[in-house]
Amino acid sequence: MSQPLVGITVLDLTQIYQGPYCGFLMATAGADVIKIEPRGGERLRGAGGAKTQLSFATLNSNKKSITLDLKHERGKALLKELVQQADILLENYAPGVMDRLGVGWEVLHEINPALIYVSGTGYGLSGPDRDMLAMDHTIQATSGVMSSTGDPDRPPGRAGGAPSDIMGGIHMYGGAMTALVGRHATGQGTLVEVSMLEAMYFTLSTEFSAYHATGKIPQRNSARSPSSVVPYSRYECSDGGYVAIICVAQGHWHKILKVIGREDLIGHEDYEKPGKRLKNEAAVNEMLNAWAITVTRDEAFNTMREAGVPVAPIRNLEEVRNDPHMHARGSLQKLEHPQMGEVILPNNPIRYSEYDRAELEFYPEPGQHNHEIYGELLGLAPDEVAALLSDAVI
Amino acid sequence: MSQPLVGITVLDLTQIYQGPYCGFLMATAGADVIKIEPRGGERLRGAGGAKTQLSFATLNSNKKSITLDLKHERGKALLKELVQQADILLENYAPGVMDRLGVGWEVLHEINPALIYVSGTGYGLSGPDRDMLAMDHTIQATSGVMSSTGDPDRPPGRAGGAPSDIMGGIHMYGGAMTALVGRHATGQGTLVEVSMLEAMYFTLSTEFSAYHATGKIPQRNSARSPSSVVPYSRYECSDGGYVAIICVAQGHWHKILKVIGREDLIGHEDYEKPGKRLKNEAAVNEMLNAWAITVTRDEAFNTMREAGVPVAPIRNLEEVRNDPHMHARGSLQKLEHPQMGEVILPNNPIRYSEYDRAELEFYPEPGQHNHEIYGELLGLAPDEVAALLSDAVI
Repeated sequence: MSQPLVGITVLDLTQIYQGPYCGFLMATAGADVIKIEPRGGERLRGAGGAKTQLSFATLNSNKKSITLDLKHERGKALLKELVQQADILLENYAPGVMDRLGVGWEVLHEINPALIYVSGTGYGLSGPDRDMLAMDHTIQATSGVMSSTGDPDRPPGRAGGAPSDIMGGIHMYGGAMTALVGRHATGQGTLVEVSMLEAMYFTLSTEFSAYHATGKIPQRNSARSPSSVVPYSRYECSDGGYVAIICVAQGHWHKILKVIGREDLIGHEDYEKPGKRLKNEAAVNEMLNAWAITVTRDEAFNTMREAGVPVAPIRNLEEVRNDPHMHARGSLQKLEHPQMGEVILPNNPIRYSEYDRAELEFYPEPGQHNHEIYGELLGLAPDEVAALLSDAVI
Repeated sequence: MSQPLVGITVLDLTQIYQGPYCGFLMATAGADVIKIEPRGGERLRGAGGAKTQLSFATLNSNKKSITLDLKHERGKALLKELVQQADILLENYAPGVMDRLGVGWEVLHEINPALIYVSGTGYGLSGPDRDMLAMDHTIQATSGVMSSTGDPDRPPGRAGGAPSDIMGGIHMYGGAMTALVGRHATGQGTLVEVSMLEAMYFTLSTEFSAYHATGKIPQRNSARSPSSVVPYSRYECSDGGYVAIICVAQGHWHKILKVIGREDLIGHEDYEKPGKRLKNEAAVNEMLNAWAITVTRDEAFNTMREAGVPVAPIRNLEEVRNDPHMHARGSLQKLEHPQMGEVILPNNPIRYSEYDRAELEFYPEPGQHNHEIYGELLGLAPDEVAALLSDAVI
């Protein structure tokens, strides 16, 4: 079979990370995703050409691009015409922006009752904080991620990356797909609403659980989560690298003791039971640190791995983007872009045994598909498209 | 309308966070989610009764529970019978476990070609690292999250929470929904495969982008991401609290200057252009720190918010779980559990304007629905279910 979303048409009005990730997942699952950009292009593009931001290239593979000025009356009319041909519309403007432009959910739903309109925001479309300005950074602050990240003797810290944005985007995707499933039964579209703040809540399940159980807010700890598992940390090795180790089952503990040459402690009353290890966590970590510092990161990793211990090297970004495993699986691909040069791009992280994998196609230039889309989807003649261009509508 | 997934039957064989979050999203969107547990219950439950882990309660709302011993021959046969009645099966065992039990994808696909079989693992079902033991902790290490979290003078740190687990679970959900969409066209099921490692790649888009642009791996920084935006940090206030501030647009900079009483710097050549601010970031942060330390966190937040600056208080877990905004929206609900007492539980973070919201129902006890499910779905008489119980099959 080809791909699961073949035949689905998506209007992607989104920018930066959250919404574009959602559109990327659709495009690489076979949907026709039309990126609708302001004249000049979405702002994540960066300087363009060889200086295109890799993040833009990452999140906009396999999309088509048209330009459209939504402040122009003719631009709004064109969007309404496109909506009649579309299954899904994605937008991640601040709440109320699309309404003020006259192309909000109510209006577009009227035009196409089967339309699935997906809104991604920081705080949602209702509630007292609806209009708070939201980016990944501020959502990390309000969601509890920052107060749970870092060491207690340092200020609260950001989690690396932009987890709130991407978590928002993948929830938009899940919601859009669910709405397509629902539409099969009813024929009706729906507004799908995702708030990054709400989508992030579940990531802190261990922290909320520890707080509930003890009545005390767990201290942030950059080495481990507030679960009762020991050992659970990262350990420095002789070459300055680190390994992460976690002892989920009792058998892991015995394997660890063998690797670090402390079989004498198997069955020892201070360490045998998980509760005892929790009490003696400092001593346990001391043993592991004493061992780790005598071997390189890769030696530590390989020895523990062969022994069947849950272990992983803490990898830097170079190692991650060159990961032989992900390249072997085709999740990461090295591609040669005519202007950017060599880039490593990820494919859709969701795979289907019964469908073909999408071939990765580079992001489009702004308006690259103006003639194709306005021609095929709206039936405009080439000179009509040219007129829209010269009138600065598209 | 009721809910988008009404009529969809899900067999949820998952445990801990990743798979159960996927099942939770389905259950709170109207699917019949049958949690299939080993006798004695899934291990995240904790001590049970009042000591049930809140994380378990959070991720298992609105599910039904049956028990089933998959190592028992009759248990395998029962699973196969259930599969004939199901649309989706979720599992997050290590790769190969279901195959070794004789109930892997190939076998179940044969029994029910329309079945959507969703596998959630750390590294996927192929590739050289397929069999590496994976938990959130080790995926944070291999994905690059740890090397991108924390301060450069400290060891690499964990991001707070369990982002890899939850990111894996929501990608499983997106994949399952996509497969349902595909099945409408083809009638065929599929294996859906999600690797936590691959699902996490996109969260580090800024980091990979900075690395690509400069050729240097960006240093981890707990205050900000390696974008070119300034100001972008968290600032300590007079009461020991912090605010997160990010200056996305040029207008924000002028608003910030007004709030901190430095209108004199509007248009100043050292700070006016984003590139100049990036160069003079230390001086910019010094100004903001000098101001923030004179006001409380809430004063800082409210003043900046009113001025239209992207700002947020860094909230602790108590503030997050009592957030008036999320409670007003019904995203968080205070409920009284007969044994756990008062708990705060989150509802599905995806909302649909044209469907009813699920009423949150507490997690089931292990095997609570044995009679109902084995009776209704497989047509077993009460004495047959009783015999399975006494034979320790279920």
